[in-house]
Amino acid sequence: MTRPAAPGLQVRRWSAGRWTDSPDAVVTEEPLQLMLEGKPLSVVMRTPGNDLELCLGLMFAEGILRTLADVSLVHISAEAGEVERGMRVESDLVESNQVDVRFAREPRRKPERSMLSSSACGVCGTVLIEDLRRDLAVLPHGPEVDPSVLPGLVEILRSGQDVFDRTGGLHAAGLFSATGNVQCVREDVGRHNAVDKVVGRALLDGKLPAASSVLVVSGRAGYEIVQKSISAGIPVLAAVGAPSSLAVALAREFNQTLVGFLRGDRFNVYAAPERLTR
Amino acid sequence: MTRPAAPGLQVRRWSAGRWTDSPDAVVTEEPLQLMLEGKPLSVVMRTPGNDLELCLGLMFAEGILRTLADVSLVHISAEAGEVERGMRVESDLVESNQVDVRFAREPRRKPERSMLSSSACGVCGTVLIEDLRRDLAVLPHGPEVDPSVLPGLVEILRSGQDVFDRTGGLHAAGLFSATGNVQCVREDVGRHNAVDKVVGRALLDGKLPAASSVLVVSGRAGYEIVQKSISAGIPVLAAVGAPSSLAVALAREFNQTLVGFLRGDRFNVYAAPERLTR
Repeated sequence: MTRPAAPGLQVRRWSAGRWTDSPDAVVTEEPLQLMLEGKPLSVVMRTPGNDLELCLGLMFAEGILRTLADVSLVHISAEAGEVERGMRVESDLVESNQVDVRFAREPRRKPERSMLSSSACGVCGTVLIEDLRRDLAVLPHGPEVDPSVLPGLVEILRSGQDVFDRTGGLHAAGLFSATGNVQCVREDVGRHNAVDKVVGRALLDGKLPAASSVLVVSGRAGYEIVQKSISAGIPVLAAVGAPSSLAVALAREFNQTLVGFLRGDRFNVYAAPERLTR
Repeated sequence: MTRPAAPGLQVRRWSAGRWTDSPDAVVTEEPLQLMLEGKPLSVVMRTPGNDLELCLGLMFAEGILRTLADVSLVHISAEAGEVERGMRVESDLVESNQVDVRFAREPRRKPERSMLSSSACGVCGTVLIEDLRRDLAVLPHGPEVDPSVLPGLVEILRSGQDVFDRTGGLHAAGLFSATGNVQCVREDVGRHNAVDKVVGRALLDGKLPAASSVLVVSGRAGYEIVQKSISAGIPVLAAVGAPSSLAVALAREFNQTLVGFLRGDRFNVYAAPERLTR
């Protein structure tokens, strides 16, 4: 049901002082209404497709659910009739662009606490990291990763991105084994969503924590990307773009190997370089 | 008080099969706690500096405030003692990274309605645009802009980005006159924040709606960038990156000229090309 590129639009092109008219493809962006127990939680702007993964991955990152056993039933408007590892998924919503997650038990964390809408008065990077320490574990040592494997992973990520080629508007996230075998690649107009979809897929496949994997992202590595990947137990995060100060601080605190500027045969390591042996 | 680049970090660099160690600068990312009438509204991850602009610009885009007269007092932890157009700004907060906005009158829109946490059950691009029609006006005709002016604006944007040069991690937004004179350039780790800062500055300077201006952004043009710039009455939006389907639909609906892929001497026009005369 993926429709990541919208139908061709008529576009006016300017090049070296001249106008031409021709059709162009743009990436599809649509809102998705997330609901918990029938109550609106949040609206996410995303590229349609893999909505179940997106929803579960996002709720996992926010600490709202920890395992699939927390979920009793998912009502969803698309991806009809999927049954994932015994979890009931019903495509019975009349409205499009909706997901409603019902819990088998009390949500682990109150939704008010989530979505970065902290109720704390006063917050800074240090407070945020201390806060995460209550929920997240420091990543254990290992696995060893050959640094010369990393540059090739970006090529694999790009080779799966046919919509990117046509629209230039999609971010990608790919989960790989420590030896560089591709496990899952997802695309989205939002770079956080692409990571949520990959983590949601791993959750559905019973593969969390993803303790011996490498996550590669097409964009930058900010606080949220690092937080989401540490939540999923991913020991190595590599970004094509730049890291932020808070991303580096968080990765160092939780012993995640953080790679930035992964381009051509070069990259920089900002945290926990020990896993990259050689 | 801007400190957009964090102090040098020790970084391990991989290049063509060899390791070297050297310091590197990364862009600063820190949370900012936004409060309304002393109550937590949201936490925004941002690059410190111009926090007052960011806060007011974001609340303006969300429809929480319409004019400066809506605001009676702003408590802020940084940017001490600024008095902006008669608005009281007090730097009396003990905690860092906080802004608290007090209103002279009832907020125009309940905060629950804002921050894309729609309480509507069922939402899609069409519903979202219809929803905006209640709050936003279709942009009037004009101004005329010479298309050959646009490519130079990206160079001006980049030339002001010294932190970007060092960290590669900052987005920029620049407001220009219809003839290409620079009015305001702001940077941030978040591309939405850079736009909020520019709009916040224009609000503080009494220049909204910015009815004869061109906004240039360093990243992509998604739904939120288009919505924020239409809110501010900006008739021409030009992005270095790709537009999304919803961005194009929104720009066409509200008669905003939407330019994408503004690179070198080329660009594409996705909506309202009439303003680009020649």
